[in-house]
Amino acid sequence: MTGQAAHPVAEPTAPWTVPTLADSVRLTDDAVLILDRRRFPFERDWVRCATVEEVAAAIADMVTQSSGPYFAALHGMVLAARAAATRPPAEARAELERAGALLVASRSTNNHLRKAVDAVLAPCGPVSGAELVAAAELGARRGAEVYHARSRALGEHSARLLPPGARVLTHCWADSYLIETVNAVRALGNEVSFVCTETRPYLQGARLTAETLAEMGVDTTLITDGMGAAVLAAGEVDALLTAADRVTMDGHVVNKVGTLGLAVAAHAFGVPFLAQVQAPDPAAPTAADVPIEHRCGDEVLHTLGVRTASTRVRGHYPAFDVTPPRFVHTVVTDRGPFAPDALDGYHRKAVSD
Amino acid sequence: MTGQAAHPVAEPTAPWTVPTLADSVRLTDDAVLILDRRRFPFERDWVRCATVEEVAAAIADMVTQSSGPYFAALHGMVLAARAAATRPPAEARAELERAGALLVASRSTNNHLRKAVDAVLAPCGPVSGAELVAAAELGARRGAEVYHARSRALGEHSARLLPPGARVLTHCWADSYLIETVNAVRALGNEVSFVCTETRPYLQGARLTAETLAEMGVDTTLITDGMGAAVLAAGEVDALLTAADRVTMDGHVVNKVGTLGLAVAAHAFGVPFLAQVQAPDPAAPTAADVPIEHRCGDEVLHTLGVRTASTRVRGHYPAFDVTPPRFVHTVVTDRGPFAPDALDGYHRKAVSD
Repeated sequence: MTGQAAHPVAEPTAPWTVPTLADSVRLTDDAVLILDRRRFPFERDWVRCATVEEVAAAIADMVTQSSGPYFAALHGMVLAARAAATRPPAEARAELERAGALLVASRSTNNHLRKAVDAVLAPCGPVSGAELVAAAELGARRGAEVYHARSRALGEHSARLLPPGARVLTHCWADSYLIETVNAVRALGNEVSFVCTETRPYLQGARLTAETLAEMGVDTTLITDGMGAAVLAAGEVDALLTAADRVTMDGHVVNKVGTLGLAVAAHAFGVPFLAQVQAPDPAAPTAADVPIEHRCGDEVLHTLGVRTASTRVRGHYPAFDVTPPRFVHTVVTDRGPFAPDALDGYHRKAVSD
Repeated sequence: MTGQAAHPVAEPTAPWTVPTLADSVRLTDDAVLILDRRRFPFERDWVRCATVEEVAAAIADMVTQSSGPYFAALHGMVLAARAAATRPPAEARAELERAGALLVASRSTNNHLRKAVDAVLAPCGPVSGAELVAAAELGARRGAEVYHARSRALGEHSARLLPPGARVLTHCWADSYLIETVNAVRALGNEVSFVCTETRPYLQGARLTAETLAEMGVDTTLITDGMGAAVLAAGEVDALLTAADRVTMDGHVVNKVGTLGLAVAAHAFGVPFLAQVQAPDPAAPTAADVPIEHRCGDEVLHTLGVRTASTRVRGHYPAFDVTPPRFVHTVVTDRGPFAPDALDGYHRKAVSD
């Protein structure tokens, strides 16, 4: 990088600091508390959701995103189980399934919500009362554990693909995948530096990724969303690494809008694009099987709630884009790396490989 | 476009409305008045520059940009001539040349400033007093007329390359090239609609392009800088059209950072990229001959003066990027369109062609 100002030093309190966002959805005795990512790190407000309906609304309103909705949905299902516990088993089950459908409908593009709901429903047999609540809590706990373990495995596989001292371009906020990748790079005795995009309109990169990497003491540089190609063309990064909301079985990467442009530029300038996902989605054979969420165009016209566009224009906000496999170098999963045209190997591969 | 909210109707006062920014640098008896583009259209403040030093500082501070610095420099040179008029001719000339050097140094990537300074210096012979002032004013007037005439010709050539009803993606703010293109499209009896990028960090697209197109009654949609590839891949636009700060003789297009990523994506998805410049630059045989301005990285960390990034990260701000000719379909000049590998034809071609 040229023309840099002195770097405001990000001093971690310990080399393995757990960043704030790694513990930003919590279950209490009577609510789910969700750290509001829309204003983090400028404000650190927790949104209290006393019902599963409030949890679903918080997810739809982007109070949390990336991995956050997975944990919010796990805990939201526990709230639903507590509320339904006084009903007879069949009614309680119907209530839980209704709650699950509500959570799944709150965002449409990734599979996290469906998986969280399934994780809680699975151990809930035809029971009621304290037994139902205990089963739901167990499901939520196990769901969280599995998610963390898979993210850790994915991070370890990712770290092995990065050269020592790698300079990595990322986009949006890869949440636990990013945190586990950094931890795994360090476990290998290496370091990594990041260039992150600000990721308009919500600025997840400028706020969540930048703050978290700083908390972890990682050298980080912020660029606007339009600067990625310039950084790639100039040879300033060794890899493009992003999470994926979904990867289809034929190798399309569905992720935060902006990923496609970076992937195409990375391909044009010979930089590998590594897309992280716990698993490719057997329910999505092709890109046509993934619904792309369009959010309200007004969000494009504002920045952190302040109007930043002409008052005479409309906005357009496809929240995700789809990167065809020809622009994807490697899909990194919890079972290791796969070429985008060889993803069927994932489901043939044992977890222990 | 899918999922659009109703379009806030942009009602032009007449079909040929002259937009505000087309007349945003003015010479008065004792100053140059420059409409502050950093806050337009939210505020309509004029910055008053009483000296050429103040004009140069206003240009460096981005009070005006795109075509604006050309007109500010023309008029700044008139202020310098007025100030130097009491000196003997040789001293006055030296003062004018010093003023010119100051203006040229205020921004480094495009040639507008050099051309404006030359336009005023050319008619200023070894004279002083009222004669010097008159010569400078004549030079400035002629410089403005030539600029407008060339932009108009460029706009007419551009309009002929766009199909009727063309949907056009643009980036940043092409200023008089954009205005003249819209006028020329309408003179052909056609219409055009635009998708414009917000263009962080200064939001020229969200503020200047969007507001001006709305003033002209053009259907306009705003996207963030990361959404261009998604729009291109979805077949939602027929062309990518941007201005260029410079085009080198070997076909590299130097323009606002973000252009490269859009051009690479346009190429990948079969959408032609038309780059507008009055003339390719014979002083820049290759991209290596164009200095790329790096601005302060702090600008990336703020939006309209408000901190929008983690306080623990540094910013990186290359203000321009360089698009290689393989991603450029056509360079549109005041002498017509040229393939990027045939730009030497420009300087062999008569203006009247």
